[in-house]
Amino acid sequence: MSEVRPVVRASDGHRLRVRRLGVDTQFEPVIFMHKECAVCRSEGFVAHNRLLLRAGERHVIATLYQVTNDLIAHDEAALSDSAWGRLELTDGDTIAISHPDPLASLSHIRSRIYGNGLSAEALLSVTADIVNGKYSDIHLSSFITACAARPLDHGEVLGLTKAMVDVGDRLSWNAEIVLDKHSVGGLPGNRTTPIIVPIIAALGLTMPKTSSRAITSPAGTADTMETMAPVDLAIPDIHRVVEREGGCIVWGGAIRLSPADDILIRIERALDLDSEGQMIASVLSKKIAAGSTHLILDMPVGPTAKVRSREAADALSAGLVTVAGAFGIKARVIAGDGTEPIGRGIGPALEANDVLAVLQRLPAAPRDLRNRAVALAGALIELGGLAEDGRGAAMAAQTLDDGRAWEKFQRICEAQGGMRTPPSSSHRQPLAAERTGRVDLMDNRKIAKLAKLAGAPEAKAAGIELHVRPGDIVSTGQPLCTVHAEARGELAYAMDYAAANPDIITVQER
Amino acid sequence: MSEVRPVVRASDGHRLRVRRLGVDTQFEPVIFMHKECAVCRSEGFVAHNRLLLRAGERHVIATLYQVTNDLIAHDEAALSDSAWGRLELTDGDTIAISHPDPLASLSHIRSRIYGNGLSAEALLSVTADIVNGKYSDIHLSSFITACAARPLDHGEVLGLTKAMVDVGDRLSWNAEIVLDKHSVGGLPGNRTTPIIVPIIAALGLTMPKTSSRAITSPAGTADTMETMAPVDLAIPDIHRVVEREGGCIVWGGAIRLSPADDILIRIERALDLDSEGQMIASVLSKKIAAGSTHLILDMPVGPTAKVRSREAADALSAGLVTVAGAFGIKARVIAGDGTEPIGRGIGPALEANDVLAVLQRLPAAPRDLRNRAVALAGALIELGGLAEDGRGAAMAAQTLDDGRAWEKFQRICEAQGGMRTPPSSSHRQPLAAERTGRVDLMDNRKIAKLAKLAGAPEAKAAGIELHVRPGDIVSTGQPLCTVHAEARGELAYAMDYAAANPDIITVQER
Repeated sequence: MSEVRPVVRASDGHRLRVRRLGVDTQFEPVIFMHKECAVCRSEGFVAHNRLLLRAGERHVIATLYQVTNDLIAHDEAALSDSAWGRLELTDGDTIAISHPDPLASLSHIRSRIYGNGLSAEALLSVTADIVNGKYSDIHLSSFITACAARPLDHGEVLGLTKAMVDVGDRLSWNAEIVLDKHSVGGLPGNRTTPIIVPIIAALGLTMPKTSSRAITSPAGTADTMETMAPVDLAIPDIHRVVEREGGCIVWGGAIRLSPADDILIRIERALDLDSEGQMIASVLSKKIAAGSTHLILDMPVGPTAKVRSREAADALSAGLVTVAGAFGIKARVIAGDGTEPIGRGIGPALEANDVLAVLQRLPAAPRDLRNRAVALAGALIELGGLAEDGRGAAMAAQTLDDGRAWEKFQRICEAQGGMRTPPSSSHRQPLAAERTGRVDLMDNRKIAKLAKLAGAPEAKAAGIELHVRPGDIVSTGQPLCTVHAEARGELAYAMDYAAANPDIITVQER
Repeated sequence: MSEVRPVVRASDGHRLRVRRLGVDTQFEPVIFMHKECAVCRSEGFVAHNRLLLRAGERHVIATLYQVTNDLIAHDEAALSDSAWGRLELTDGDTIAISHPDPLASLSHIRSRIYGNGLSAEALLSVTADIVNGKYSDIHLSSFITACAARPLDHGEVLGLTKAMVDVGDRLSWNAEIVLDKHSVGGLPGNRTTPIIVPIIAALGLTMPKTSSRAITSPAGTADTMETMAPVDLAIPDIHRVVEREGGCIVWGGAIRLSPADDILIRIERALDLDSEGQMIASVLSKKIAAGSTHLILDMPVGPTAKVRSREAADALSAGLVTVAGAFGIKARVIAGDGTEPIGRGIGPALEANDVLAVLQRLPAAPRDLRNRAVALAGALIELGGLAEDGRGAAMAAQTLDDGRAWEKFQRICEAQGGMRTPPSSSHRQPLAAERTGRVDLMDNRKIAKLAKLAGAPEAKAAGIELHVRPGDIVSTGQPLCTVHAEARGELAYAMDYAAANPDIITVQER
C-alpha cells in the first residue's frame, strides 16, 4: 500500500523575497529563481514554465528562467521590470509563487481548429484569459491563426466584438451624437485623423477620437500624433479634453478600451497577418467601447492597398456596417483610391510634417492628403446633421481655410499635455532613379516595408519621404525618395532591401 | 537635399565581448545587453528583438533582453546557457551581433492561412528555417495551427515528410530488411517497444529503434527507456550497438533524425494539438531518416484513445501506408483495442516496471501488455519473412518465454551505456473508490492528464499506478490507483484535479 503524505493545495503557493533585477523584457513578465532553490525543487519547476505570481490583490503570470550561479540567492527571486511594475512591488517584499490554473479556454481554440464554430461564451472566455495574461505567445498565435484560417462567421464576429468590449472599459459622453472615423489602412501616409478632428470640433460637434498604433504599417495615427502631443491619456483626462475642446486624438491602448486588441496586435504584427473577421472586431470593439454613435470608415482600395479590389471592399464594408448596426452604431464606408501613397511622408514624424503643413495651409502642403481629409470630414459633418448631403465637404474646406481647424488643433494638443515638434532623423539616404523616364508604379507594400526596415514606427523619425508622384518625369540619378532612420544599422538594413528590390518605385523609359 | 552618410551593411554586425550569465532558459537562446550600450543605440535594438549572434562558423538567433542597471557593462553581452552552448564559447570571446535576415518563408504560412496549398519547395523552406532556429514561438505556433485548421492534402503531407527528412541526418544499415514499429499513441501505458525490440533482435533480425519523447502523453518510449538505460546516443554509438546486438532503443532527437519534429513537438504539447497530416509526417520522417524498410504501425482505437473510431483509424491507416509506400517503406497497420490503459503504470518509471516484469516473466506481469507486445512482434516477424502469416505470434511468445528476449534486453542496455534501475517516487497518494460497486469506465484522457499534472514525463518517477481494471468489484475506500510524484506541489496539483473530476475511474453501484 502506498505511503500517504500530507497534501498542500498547489494554489496556496510558496513565498519568496523579491528584488528587481533591472532587466527590460518588454511586455513579457519574467521571474528568475535559483535552479536549486527549495521552491523550484519542491514544485518541480523547470525553465520556461509559466508561473502565477501574487502580491496582495495583484497577480501576473511570468516565464521562469533559472539561475545556475550566485547571481541570485536560494531564498530570493528576481523580477523583470514588467513583472515588477505590474505587481507594484518595493525591494524586500515577498510574493506567492504557484502553478497557474490549467488553461481551460484552450479547448475552444482546438475546437475551432477542428472545424467547429466559437460561441459567444467561448469567445468571452478566450478573450478574458488573453486580457488576464494567461496566454503565452504560442496560445495567442494559435488563436489568431485559427480565426484566420477559416474565416470567422457573422455570429463569431459579433461574439468576438462583444467579448473584446466586455473585457475592457467603456466611455460615455454628454452628447447625443458622438462622431468617429476609422481608416482601414494599408495606404502609407493616409494620416487624415489629426486634420479631421479639429475641423469637426471647430464646428461644435463631438469627436473623441481614440486611435491605434500601427499593426503591420509603418505608422498608426497614435504613433504619428504622439510626435505632436501626448496621446497616452487616462479616462478623466480624455473627458476633460473633450469637454473643453469637443475633440481629442489619443491612443486607445493607454485606456483599457478593448485591451485584448492591443495584445493581439503584437502577434498579428509578428505574423504580418490581419484577417477580416478580426479586423472588424478590432475596429468596432474600440468604437463601441469609445461610446461612438456615428462612424465614417475610410477604405482605400487598390492592388497594393490592404483592400485590393472593389469586391473585397464591398464584402468588408457590408461586414463592418452590419456588425456596427448590431451594436447601435450608424456606419458609412467611404471607399477611395488606394493606388498610391497619400502625402509625402511615411513614418510617424514624417507624416506629422504633412499634417501640420495642411493645417497651417503651407503652399507645399500635400493636396491629396488635404482633399481626402476634407472629403471624410464632409461625410462626418453630413452624418452629424450639420449639413445636407453633398454640402459637408465645402463646410470642411472652409473650416480649414479660415484657420479655425489649425487653431482648434493647437488647443487640442495643449489640452492633451502640450504641443511638440516632430523629431528629425539623424541618418538619411536617397534612392535615386536608375534611368531617365516616367514614374510609373509605386508599390505601397514595398514602400511600407522599406519604412519599417528603416525603423518605423518604433523609431519616430524613421520612414520614407517621397519626392515624386506617378506620372512625374525624372532623370537618371534624381532622388525618388529619401530613407530616414534614427540608427545607422537600420538605414543600412533598409538600403539593402532597396538594392534588392528595384521595383519599389518603377521608372519607365519613355 | 538629404544628407548622405556612409552605409554599413547591417549583416556585418557589431562585435561585443561575451560572458556566460548563468541562466537556464531551456531551448530559448537569450542575449542580455545594456540598454544604453553603443550597439543597442546605434542599431535601434529594443527588448524582445530577435538578433543573429555569430561566433566563427557558428550562429544562433537569440531573444534580446535589456539590462538597465550595472548587472552587465556597456561593452559586453551576457548569454543564456543555451546560447552559450550552441556558439561553443569561452569567457572573453567576442561575438558579432546583427539583425537576422527577413523571414521570407513566413509568406508561405500566410498563403496557407489564406486558403492556398504548400508546395514541396515552400515546405522545405519553412522546415529549414525552423531547424535553423529562425522561427519564434509565434511563427511555430502559426505554422502548426495553419496546417491543422485545414487538413494537409496528400501532396502537402508528402512534401512535409520529405522536407523533415531532408533537413536532418539519415541512417543506413548493412541489412536488406530493417524492421521498425511505431505506436500512434493515445493509450496510456502502451509501452511495447522495449519488449518487441529484444524479441526481434534475439531472432537475428535487425531493428534499430529510434523513439520519441512524449508529445501530449505522460510518457514516450524514449522517456520510459531512459529510466532503464541511456537513450541519447550519437550515430556511431547507435551503429555499434546495432551491429553487436541487432537492435537498439534510443531517442531519435539525440541524433538529428527529423530535427524539425523535436522543435514542433514542444509547441504541439503547449497547444495539446496533434493533427493527422503532421502526425503522418512526424512518424514517417523519423522512419525514413532511420533507414527503415518494413514498418508495423500499432494503432489503438477507442473513444478516449488518440484514434477514436474505426473510420478515423481507416483514414489514418490509409494515409500512413500510402505515404510510407511513396518513400519505399512497406507498412502494415495493426489496429487494436484502445478502450482502456495497457499495463499498470502510466509515466516513465512506472511503465518501465511493467516492461521489466514482462521481460522477466514475473507472475505479476500485466498480461495485456505482454499480449499486445507478442501480437506486434509476431506481425514484425511475419513482415521480416521469418514466419508465415499467422505463425509470428507463437514464435514471439516462445522467444519471451525461454528468456532469450530478457537476455537480449540486458545486452542492449549494456551496449547503450549500462542498465539502470527505474527511480521510485518520493510522494504518493491513492485515489479511493467513493462507493462499492463495479469499475465501469476508465477515461484514458483524464488518466493521462492526471499523470501529467503529477509531473510526468519530466519527473521520471511520477505518474499513475492502476490497481483495478474495468469489471473489477471494489468496495468504498478501496484504492483505485495511486498518484506518484517527485514534488509535493505536483502531487497536490494532481489531487486537486482528481477531486474536481470524479469520473477519471467510474465505479457503478451494483
